[in-house]
Amino acid sequence: MTSSRKISRPRSAPLHESDLNPWTICKKNTVYENPWIKVDHHEVIDPKGLPGIYGTVHYKHTAIGIVPLSDEHETWLVGQYRFPLNTYSWEIPEGGAHKSETPLEAAKRELREETGLLAKNFEYIMEMHLSNSTSDEKALVYIAHGLTEGPSAPESTEDLQIKKIPFAKALEMVLAGEITDAISVAALLKTAHLLSSGSLLIKKAT
Amino acid sequence: MTSSRKISRPRSAPLHESDLNPWTICKKNTVYENPWIKVDHHEVIDPKGLPGIYGTVHYKHTAIGIVPLSDEHETWLVGQYRFPLNTYSWEIPEGGAHKSETPLEAAKRELREETGLLAKNFEYIMEMHLSNSTSDEKALVYIAHGLTEGPSAPESTEDLQIKKIPFAKALEMVLAGEITDAISVAALLKTAHLLSSGSLLIKKAT
Repeated sequence: MTSSRKISRPRSAPLHESDLNPWTICKKNTVYENPWIKVDHHEVIDPKGLPGIYGTVHYKHTAIGIVPLSDEHETWLVGQYRFPLNTYSWEIPEGGAHKSETPLEAAKRELREETGLLAKNFEYIMEMHLSNSTSDEKALVYIAHGLTEGPSAPESTEDLQIKKIPFAKALEMVLAGEITDAISVAALLKTAHLLSSGSLLIKKAT
Repeated sequence: MTSSRKISRPRSAPLHESDLNPWTICKKNTVYENPWIKVDHHEVIDPKGLPGIYGTVHYKHTAIGIVPLSDEHETWLVGQYRFPLNTYSWEIPEGGAHKSETPLEAAKRELREETGLLAKNFEYIMEMHLSNSTSDEKALVYIAHGLTEGPSAPESTEDLQIKKIPFAKALEMVLAGEITDAISVAALLKTAHLLSSGSLLIKKAT
């Protein structure tokens, strides 16, 4: 069990060359598709040269998350019932980018629709792959500042609650495990890091 | 567009009561299943009372992530080709918990298999839902310390590289967008927060 380790391509830097893919796809067929996801079943040869299967979930829309941050370091959380989890979840404003819009346009739209907020500035802070053992789902996160409050207009399927709280309280909710949505957890932790390290040019109003 | 906001259940705290689920399932059928995931298609009535569909991905195994942390504040990253993304990815040690083991047992096994590390202490630090618009996938993360290095033994399908680097360098990789795996991003940011706030009882050896 201890001697089977194989490091066939020793390198110290990340690899991105597609020809280094150690998987071979023998057969692929789409087993499910709807407007949001496509599920493919693959027959493969795995990195060790053995036959196997691999089911993947392709996401048709990039996930967008926004951390709105007021001059007083307040933020806004969105509460909604998450159907796949069968539970209620408090999160940062999030949504999927439409095919006709850029990620930044989607961030502006989602923030306005879910919270009514307009922002003078959107600062891109991170990209994540949410579940890379199975899916290609990507999330992009922005901090929105220079905020003006207006009326919200959620999508027809959404039944949302909104709350405005101190950013420090949102961070406490992450640390206490009260926020578990991965985009929200990572986005709020990264925003906290940027604020505490002085990397974010949003000074708290005094 | 601005008057359609509906807040039917105003509350200030998270809701967890399952009877508050605003979705009605009219019909459900499983469209794909393999040893790791099950995909279900639902015909639903959405929170606004309109008919729709919902495809969900159920994960059969809880994802486990481990941040190994030496007395000198070094950590270990695992590099592997991620089939669904068609790209190489550097991450914290991760894996799926078997049905026969507890999450902690899985954390111990995955850490040993992927890195060869044995740890005296495992500290649970977070739970996340990785992609709650579509899936029920859950991740649990531990910090492992009191480490002893031994031989590794990855699973047969894995073709891994391991590198031991200062924790500060791993955090830099997150901040620079060189690590994008959501579990790794959130786990490393949370560990950094715990270290900088003094909440983690792992003092750096001097």
